[in-house]
Amino acid sequence: MENHDFGIVGLGVMGRNLLLNMADHNFAVAGLDLDAEKAGSLEKEAKDGQHVKATTSAEEFIGLLRKPRALMLLVPAGKPVDAAIASLVPYLEKGDIIIDGGNSYFPDTDRRFTELAEKGIHFFGMGISGGEKGARFGPSMMPGGDKGAYERLRPIFEAVAAKVNGEPCVTYLGSGSAGNYVKMVHNGIEYGIMQLISEVYDLLKRGLGISDEKIQQTFEAWNKSELQSFLVEITAEVLAKFDDETGERLVNLISDQARSKGTGKWTSQNAMDLQAPIPVIDAAVTMRDLSKYKEERVKASEKLTYEPSTESFGSDDEVIAIVKDAFNFAVLNIYAQGLAQLTIASKEYNYGLNLEEVAKIWRGGCIIRAVCLEDFRKAYARNADLPNILLDDEIGQTLVNTQGNARTAIKIAIDKGVPVPAFMAALGYFDAYRSAKLGTNIVQAQRDYFGAHTYERIDKPGVFHTNWN
Amino acid sequence: MENHDFGIVGLGVMGRNLLLNMADHNFAVAGLDLDAEKAGSLEKEAKDGQHVKATTSAEEFIGLLRKPRALMLLVPAGKPVDAAIASLVPYLEKGDIIIDGGNSYFPDTDRRFTELAEKGIHFFGMGISGGEKGARFGPSMMPGGDKGAYERLRPIFEAVAAKVNGEPCVTYLGSGSAGNYVKMVHNGIEYGIMQLISEVYDLLKRGLGISDEKIQQTFEAWNKSELQSFLVEITAEVLAKFDDETGERLVNLISDQARSKGTGKWTSQNAMDLQAPIPVIDAAVTMRDLSKYKEERVKASEKLTYEPSTESFGSDDEVIAIVKDAFNFAVLNIYAQGLAQLTIASKEYNYGLNLEEVAKIWRGGCIIRAVCLEDFRKAYARNADLPNILLDDEIGQTLVNTQGNARTAIKIAIDKGVPVPAFMAALGYFDAYRSAKLGTNIVQAQRDYFGAHTYERIDKPGVFHTNWN
Repeated sequence: MENHDFGIVGLGVMGRNLLLNMADHNFAVAGLDLDAEKAGSLEKEAKDGQHVKATTSAEEFIGLLRKPRALMLLVPAGKPVDAAIASLVPYLEKGDIIIDGGNSYFPDTDRRFTELAEKGIHFFGMGISGGEKGARFGPSMMPGGDKGAYERLRPIFEAVAAKVNGEPCVTYLGSGSAGNYVKMVHNGIEYGIMQLISEVYDLLKRGLGISDEKIQQTFEAWNKSELQSFLVEITAEVLAKFDDETGERLVNLISDQARSKGTGKWTSQNAMDLQAPIPVIDAAVTMRDLSKYKEERVKASEKLTYEPSTESFGSDDEVIAIVKDAFNFAVLNIYAQGLAQLTIASKEYNYGLNLEEVAKIWRGGCIIRAVCLEDFRKAYARNADLPNILLDDEIGQTLVNTQGNARTAIKIAIDKGVPVPAFMAALGYFDAYRSAKLGTNIVQAQRDYFGAHTYERIDKPGVFHTNWN
Repeated sequence: MENHDFGIVGLGVMGRNLLLNMADHNFAVAGLDLDAEKAGSLEKEAKDGQHVKATTSAEEFIGLLRKPRALMLLVPAGKPVDAAIASLVPYLEKGDIIIDGGNSYFPDTDRRFTELAEKGIHFFGMGISGGEKGARFGPSMMPGGDKGAYERLRPIFEAVAAKVNGEPCVTYLGSGSAGNYVKMVHNGIEYGIMQLISEVYDLLKRGLGISDEKIQQTFEAWNKSELQSFLVEITAEVLAKFDDETGERLVNLISDQARSKGTGKWTSQNAMDLQAPIPVIDAAVTMRDLSKYKEERVKASEKLTYEPSTESFGSDDEVIAIVKDAFNFAVLNIYAQGLAQLTIASKEYNYGLNLEEVAKIWRGGCIIRAVCLEDFRKAYARNADLPNILLDDEIGQTLVNTQGNARTAIKIAIDKGVPVPAFMAALGYFDAYRSAKLGTNIVQAQRDYFGAHTYERIDKPGVFHTNWN
């Protein structure tokens, strides 16, 4: 008793795998879940000699932990987190640490920090990415908040985290809700890349009539190129999977109504509050929503007809080479938007984020890990104050080099009538960002015309209003 | 004393013009503003024989109003509204009516309704559109909430509202915060159309080298076509205005950093909560934000270079004809998105909106008035349960007919390197909405792969999980 190093509340797929990961690294761990089956089965999954205990009683669970206690919540965001905290607090003492490892909405983390600080309990939020496999064998972890509390637990987290070049994919990121915030934006980027991949698949399959087998091989090949990344890798595996029952390619049997749990939405909503433009992520959130209107889409498919162009855009391999550059181009724009949002948020919320560190811990273990993360890390190493990675010479050059094929791929999709809103949002962002002068002076003039909202001039300082008619 | 029919708090451009409009219709009106100059100047603006009083004292103001009193707040959204209510309530009695005529965030309206109901004071939110000229000579007004209170004031509002075919552009819309909500979405649509117009201007001017004079004539001509609308009309006037001082076309001297007051942002953020896709409005919000990063854009313009296509896309008139269809296409998509959001919101918040009525009161007086609103009204008259106007046969046919030129215009912009994110978002939405099958089955497969989030199948009911690798 009282000799377990770490406890986890919530023995779903993430919680149990993270505990087993810790046990592999010789930590004695304890789990709590109200579901007796989940608690019971965990101990059986542990190997001989490992210290893994699980219970359905909060009191017993707390009694298992070494003082000062350290425990992590891995329960659904929102009320379940507050409920879990409320059920544990009566058994905790000053100096104990609670970590929220879930996808909590970052203002909730700030509130809970304050509430628990009044009781002398340390609290910090730590986003964890990597899915069930990452949790089991090495996730990327994004802690923020109470630095002293994090330091006490650093050995455990560094042991279990994914490693890239021997460096653990976990580091203290910043104050307050920095950890949950960085994880939120991580998920927004994830939404963007997933939407892009779904557009690649739709364009190649529906637009260009390329076979599933060829598309599968394409993702497999891309994963051996500069596009190497977790999401490209698993797409190749997803496309290779056949249904046991029907013998068909499983992906073709899956409903196209995409679900979501809210972190992408929060990323977009908060970006709008910060006036941080992240249009590809917005498009990804919106497309998941649009996918749900299946009945309307079926009706519309009969009414809103279009005869796709029958023009040839080259051989399959030629078109795939174009789409590959377009994908590279668009993915870089997504990361640029997400990282710029973090820079802006760090100023607004005083997180003190170090973007090089963020890029570093995203290189491995997490859903958005990709070889380009090392390029971003280097870009921030060259200039820690880079407001947007598009302004880095090397990354900028890649975009300049791939933009031609990005333009071509989108034009092909337009001619074929296949929706590529995320690709379009990437190009729209790129062309707008590289416009020293936009057409939005018209917007300012209109606002002043109808609402006397005033405007600024380019030839002299001040605020002006005109009687336009 | 105590003989004034209506009072307005906040004598900015909207408040004073609305009072003068009421005075023109023989109502006795009173105004309150803490700014003595604003209060003092109002009385001087009234014509002989009109009953217009203004004061800086809340107590005196309330004393001027006939019982049961009716007064409207036209102050900035947020804390100023709560402050104004708090300053007035001590002088009010049961049965009095407060109307919030500003752009309040709709949950605030619900909260204030409840707070004031406890004091026996009737409260309702009423969005007002039309800018300063609309307020003066006939706005579109969107009341919702306390129906009995609205009915008492209906004669005043119907008298001062804009008229279309003799019908006033005001009607009771629905319960709760329906009035503020409808106005919020009105503003979101406004953001979308303004962004589109700025993209037309940028594409024609920067992309195609068409003269300011020709662009001005284009908007003037469009306003005499099926594109007739307030925003097209004022764009023609904006482009025709020359700066007194420099003799240059004024719009060319205006900064391209667009400002915003939040209603477009709220529209997008709430649409995401409702899972209502409104990607063109999202793009408009994002582009206003992006326009503010002027310094970065100037730097990026030097690094992220692109050699625009020198291909000819036809004569100026030929290209303008293409862009005209594209504009028509995109504008219809914006209205479709906003109106669909209202349909979804009405269910979620139990507003009981009648979309035909909404289209009807938007036909005149407001910033988004356009001849196409009558087409939408007819579409809802044909089918009150239309989930999306894209599914109406007549509107659908217009989209089918204009989509070809929408595709061409966007491809021209892509080749010219001019950002048209709102046009792109319109086409992306259209092509996605008319897709019986999207590529998002890939997203569901990926989610199940890394997070065991499960998926649904098209060949049998149930919820499934696969061990993918």
